[in-house]
Amino acid sequence: MKAIVPFKIVNAKSRLSMLLTPEERKELALLMLRDITSTLTAAGVEVELLTTRPFVWDGARAVVSEKELNPALNDYIAAQDGPIMIVMADVPLITEKNIRDIIGSRADLVICPGRGGGTNLQFIRRPDRYHVDYYGASFLDHIRIAEENGLSSEVYDSFNISSDIDEAGDLVELYIHGRGEAAKYLRSLVVLDASKGRVQVVREETNIHAVRIPGKMTG
Amino acid sequence: MKAIVPFKIVNAKSRLSMLLTPEERKELALLMLRDITSTLTAAGVEVELLTTRPFVWDGARAVVSEKELNPALNDYIAAQDGPIMIVMADVPLITEKNIRDIIGSRADLVICPGRGGGTNLQFIRRPDRYHVDYYGASFLDHIRIAEENGLSSEVYDSFNISSDIDEAGDLVELYIHGRGEAAKYLRSLVVLDASKGRVQVVREETNIHAVRIPGKMTG
Repeated sequence: MKAIVPFKIVNAKSRLSMLLTPEERKELALLMLRDITSTLTAAGVEVELLTTRPFVWDGARAVVSEKELNPALNDYIAAQDGPIMIVMADVPLITEKNIRDIIGSRADLVICPGRGGGTNLQFIRRPDRYHVDYYGASFLDHIRIAEENGLSSEVYDSFNISSDIDEAGDLVELYIHGRGEAAKYLRSLVVLDASKGRVQVVREETNIHAVRIPGKMTG
Repeated sequence: MKAIVPFKIVNAKSRLSMLLTPEERKELALLMLRDITSTLTAAGVEVELLTTRPFVWDGARAVVSEKELNPALNDYIAAQDGPIMIVMADVPLITEKNIRDIIGSRADLVICPGRGGGTNLQFIRRPDRYHVDYYGASFLDHIRIAEENGLSSEVYDSFNISSDIDEAGDLVELYIHGRGEAAKYLRSLVVLDASKGRVQVVREETNIHAVRIPGKMTG
């Protein structure tokens, strides 16, 4: 089984620029990618990266395409002759159990929603009869594409996989729930601020109510 | 097995007031409550509502307390002699499978995270050795309270249960993923707008890119 992970290294995670420097964003993006690829590998899945320019990295082989995300992925899908998984590079909470559960499904398409109508992971058992259409309410588009091609689909219900770390407000999920290297790194940069109604991560330690992460959450 | 669902009927779902009228918010809140109680009942769980004033409703018995949420729930917990579940009233995506999975766990505490460090559902097998502390990063507080009382805890990974419908931005989850009465009602009031980067629900049908909900999603 193979997984393809689209990964953008240039100006990675630009929506986190209010809180993190370009170097920190790049490091966090690489650690999230490493957490995800380690987890996929541990579940017996071979990982390939889809990048727009050559990218040497020890964690996975890179497939380079200068096309936009959808045509690049659809070229990749068209070249496959067995089941594949498409995993977004910003879902560091994903677990080995999640991946094994998904692979264990009998559906032609297993889809994991992201928040706001997105698609954060797809397991495509029949790449010959499927194509992707990311952006917008892609979850609905993907369910429809499966239907139109006579494929059965199943929604895999996961908070972990739904938690894409894209904007500053998402970092709280990684801070609180993360168990990998990306979460450790994030916790070295920011602290949790629960002093206002909405819990968030902030740079400054002043005037905030410190929240202890229980030992079992950081190990 | 019993579940207690805290429910506020007066000025329900006030954070949705930018998009919905007071009457619509009340109706939506009641339909979400109905979806949740129906699902709990179908899974063999007896539902009680925790309310601040007497509330006659055919879906469940009301337990009235004028205290704040935490002391009211802790009074309730202290009076129990068997396992109980605490379920927030704004998680209408919850499924019967979710509930059966949670009840099937052997852990002393099963906890379902909400976004932003919240706790959307807890299954408390040992109410005699536990208390709750909602608000703020309550997920971490609840894990800590279990630890301090020598209770084992397990995190149940669910996008459905993590999706509390609290603010206007949350309605898109109910619109896209909901299969119950609350989702049907919401779809009668608003439409999906995928024309901008972030998918949202809006009142007006003008100038938006219509998105079809596949048949299987509305049934």
